[in-house]
Amino acid sequence: MNDEDVVALQREIHTGIPLSNAMGFQITALSGTGITVAAPLSPNLNVHATGFAGSLYALGVLTGWGMVRYLIRRQELDAELVVGEARIHYRAPVRDDIQCRCDIPEAEAGAFVEQLGSKGRAKLAIKVSIGKAGEADLTATMVAKTAAN
Amino acid sequence: MNDEDVVALQREIHTGIPLSNAMGFQITALSGTGITVAAPLSPNLNVHATGFAGSLYALGVLTGWGMVRYLIRRQELDAELVVGEARIHYRAPVRDDIQCRCDIPEAEAGAFVEQLGSKGRAKLAIKVSIGKAGEADLTATMVAKTAAN
Repeated sequence: MNDEDVVALQREIHTGIPLSNAMGFQITALSGTGITVAAPLSPNLNVHATGFAGSLYALGVLTGWGMVRYLIRRQELDAELVVGEARIHYRAPVRDDIQCRCDIPEAEAGAFVEQLGSKGRAKLAIKVSIGKAGEADLTATMVAKTAAN
Repeated sequence: MNDEDVVALQREIHTGIPLSNAMGFQITALSGTGITVAAPLSPNLNVHATGFAGSLYALGVLTGWGMVRYLIRRQELDAELVVGEARIHYRAPVRDDIQCRCDIPEAEAGAFVEQLGSKGRAKLAIKVSIGKAGEADLTATMVAKTAAN
C-alpha cells in the first residue's frame, strides 16, 4: 500500500463527492489489484438500525470507482470515469461498521488500461463485496474515456 | 396529496435514515399510487459536477421504499420492509436538482397489500425514474413481512 496514493485518492473523493464525507468513506488498503474501504455504521443507519440499502450501494459503487480511478492514474492516463449500470443483491442486514472490498484480476486490469490507452475508451466490469461477511454483493460496469474521446 | 401523511413519512425517513438529511431528500407529492421526491444537486455532486451515481441510487431506492412503506401504513399493517435486490441504469448525467418518481399500478399495490395481510409476507417489484428527464432508471424488489412472520 502506497500511503501517498491513498491520501491523494481519498482527497479527490472527499473533495469532489461531498456525500463520501457524510458516509464516512475511508480507504484502508489500496494496491494495483484491490481496495478496501471502511465506513462507520452510525451515519449509514436505516429505520431498523442496520445499514441503509442506499448507503451500502453508494459506498460499494464508490469503492469500485476508486479502484478503477486508481488503475487509470497509475498509467498516467487522463480519462473520465463513470458508472454505466449496476446491480446489488442484499443477502443479510449489516449490523457492524461497513467494509467494502473490490479486487480486480490483474489480467482484466491490464486489458482495460491497454484498451483505454490505445482506443481512448474502455469498460470494466467490477464486483464489490459489502459488509465484513459479504452481506451484500454489487456488480457494476465502469466506463472510461480519455479527454479526446 | 395528504399533507399529514407526507409530514409523517418524511419525519420517519429523516429520523431513521440520517443519510436522507445529508442528501436533502424531500417528498413533494404522495398518493396511494405515486410519490415524487426532490433533492438539491449540491450535496449530491460527483467529481464531474453532476449527480453522484451513489446519491442517485440512494435517493431512488428511498423513493421506492417510501412509496411501499406508505402503501403498508394506509392498510394499518405493521410490517418490516427491506430491499431485496436492485438494478440501476445510468443513461445521462444529471445536471440539475434531482427528482425521483415512482408509480405503482393500483392492481399491483392492491395484490401486494392483500397478500401481506393474508400471508404475512409479500414482495413488490418497483420502478423509479431518476432525474427530470429520466436520466437513470432503477428497478428494485421490496420485501415486506409482518411482525409475526
